[in-house]
Amino acid sequence: MASYHSISLHNTINLPHVKPNSGLPSKLRPNLSHSMQPRRIKASVVAQSQPYWRAIESEIDTFLDKSIPVRHPEAVFEPMRHLTFAAPRTAASALCVAACELVGGDRSHAMAAAAAVHLVHAAAYAHEHLPLTDRPRPEAEHKYGPNIELLTGDGIVPFGFELLSRSVGPARPERILRVMIEISRAGGSKGIIDGLYKEEEIVDQNSRFEFIEYVCKKKYGEIHACAAASGAILGGGSDGDIQKLWNFGLYAGTVRGLLERKGGVEIENIVRKLRDLALKELEGFHGKKNVEIFSSLVAEPSLCSA
Amino acid sequence: MASYHSISLHNTINLPHVKPNSGLPSKLRPNLSHSMQPRRIKASVVAQSQPYWRAIESEIDTFLDKSIPVRHPEAVFEPMRHLTFAAPRTAASALCVAACELVGGDRSHAMAAAAAVHLVHAAAYAHEHLPLTDRPRPEAEHKYGPNIELLTGDGIVPFGFELLSRSVGPARPERILRVMIEISRAGGSKGIIDGLYKEEEIVDQNSRFEFIEYVCKKKYGEIHACAAASGAILGGGSDGDIQKLWNFGLYAGTVRGLLERKGGVEIENIVRKLRDLALKELEGFHGKKNVEIFSSLVAEPSLCSA
Repeated sequence: MASYHSISLHNTINLPHVKPNSGLPSKLRPNLSHSMQPRRIKASVVAQSQPYWRAIESEIDTFLDKSIPVRHPEAVFEPMRHLTFAAPRTAASALCVAACELVGGDRSHAMAAAAAVHLVHAAAYAHEHLPLTDRPRPEAEHKYGPNIELLTGDGIVPFGFELLSRSVGPARPERILRVMIEISRAGGSKGIIDGLYKEEEIVDQNSRFEFIEYVCKKKYGEIHACAAASGAILGGGSDGDIQKLWNFGLYAGTVRGLLERKGGVEIENIVRKLRDLALKELEGFHGKKNVEIFSSLVAEPSLCSA
Repeated sequence: MASYHSISLHNTINLPHVKPNSGLPSKLRPNLSHSMQPRRIKASVVAQSQPYWRAIESEIDTFLDKSIPVRHPEAVFEPMRHLTFAAPRTAASALCVAACELVGGDRSHAMAAAAAVHLVHAAAYAHEHLPLTDRPRPEAEHKYGPNIELLTGDGIVPFGFELLSRSVGPARPERILRVMIEISRAGGSKGIIDGLYKEEEIVDQNSRFEFIEYVCKKKYGEIHACAAASGAILGGGSDGDIQKLWNFGLYAGTVRGLLERKGGVEIENIVRKLRDLALKELEGFHGKKNVEIFSSLVAEPSLCSA
């Protein structure tokens, strides 16, 4: 089963006013001409959100578990199943399901897309940790040799697209194709792959913090953005809702990537700025069931006030 | 631009009667209870087919050329374009377009699928040649380091799915999703990836020739089968036509994979058997425009009579 990065965190957070220099493409920057008020994430909301996220994660796990039985050829499917569940869970898959529900859809419509998002992430994770000659890589235990891990990663991505293509029963074909484009982009050369390319260049230079933000946006932000937008598409959300949830996912995913780096005051400042932008995107959903739960995805203990 | 494995070959071939032991899954074996007649491939047909295949290949190249401009981020897209065109062309992509036309469709409907088939092949080819520590691999020149070639291969597959998803204008969404399933399976753990896994096990053993046949079916046969079926799906072919073209592609692709090995009399016997099965699948299309051209895909000089 999947290991988890805990989805939600704790306490009440006071977010200070920050300047609207997001480091994100200008078209993605919200209009911040009006004075922004500090936004608060209530501890009670964060606590209440836990069962919601856990229930979704459990359903996605069950879906993946049924989708990847060890079958012929076992030499291929056994490592495929292992690497799928060995990859640490991100919040992206659960965000996909939650976004579907937020816009009024049934969560079953987003389950295959949520699984595909995890599979794309799991494949990237396997290749990120592959022992190669010229890539600095994180340490990891390897159950299989590099050739098996390479080929298994290669097999996981098409399997994700196959799962998604087959989900045409609960979801409409044109919506699935739109989701396919979202996942292709986020999991491909303009998303995760760009982040993995650029990550090697992170060194102590002048542009360091903006560059780290860029890499986190590519490696983590865009897969969360695509997941949230995909859920909204499959749930029948309006184009406006889809865009807002895409933006929220981008900010929230980038924040979650940055928080793993623990990079000191400069990184904390970027995190505060992005968290505030993320919460602003949620304002359009005010009054909708579960919307407050989304804020728990950008909560972080070290930035909490008293 | 792509380098080519010449699609069609020469001369007149006499195919001897062969026993119906195809080495393929039993459900795929045609009913061979009636005596089979030797089938002939006319030299004139083979010669006439050349401009047809060249024209299709040229159109696919143009489509790929426009689809993968070197754009931001250049560090990602430049190697992606390079590895896409560096992979030797198989007949699979052209077969996709030809199958679409054979069932009465417009070739433009199959162009994105043909490109996606080539991209899936190009990604597998890049990873097959990747310098890793525990994989015996063919020799190849490397313009980039292994990390770039790894990540570029990872980026190529989602790009293929994105291209296909975007082709909903000329083609119908439910047909595209069906094609997506075909390409996912052929390019994934039950197709090319299984072939690459098993290829390492090819040694001089009792089951050697059947095993080589299995590997060629997985590495080459299934991508040709999926390409032919995808073209038929997009061209609006009947389920019967789609199945026949899938079978034809499987036999033809396996033959083409085996012919690259030049394995002596035993391999030649398997080739003859599969070629005969391939030509039998074409009988259902008798009288249709271009059907004879398909036979050139299984022609091979060393097996020619006279």
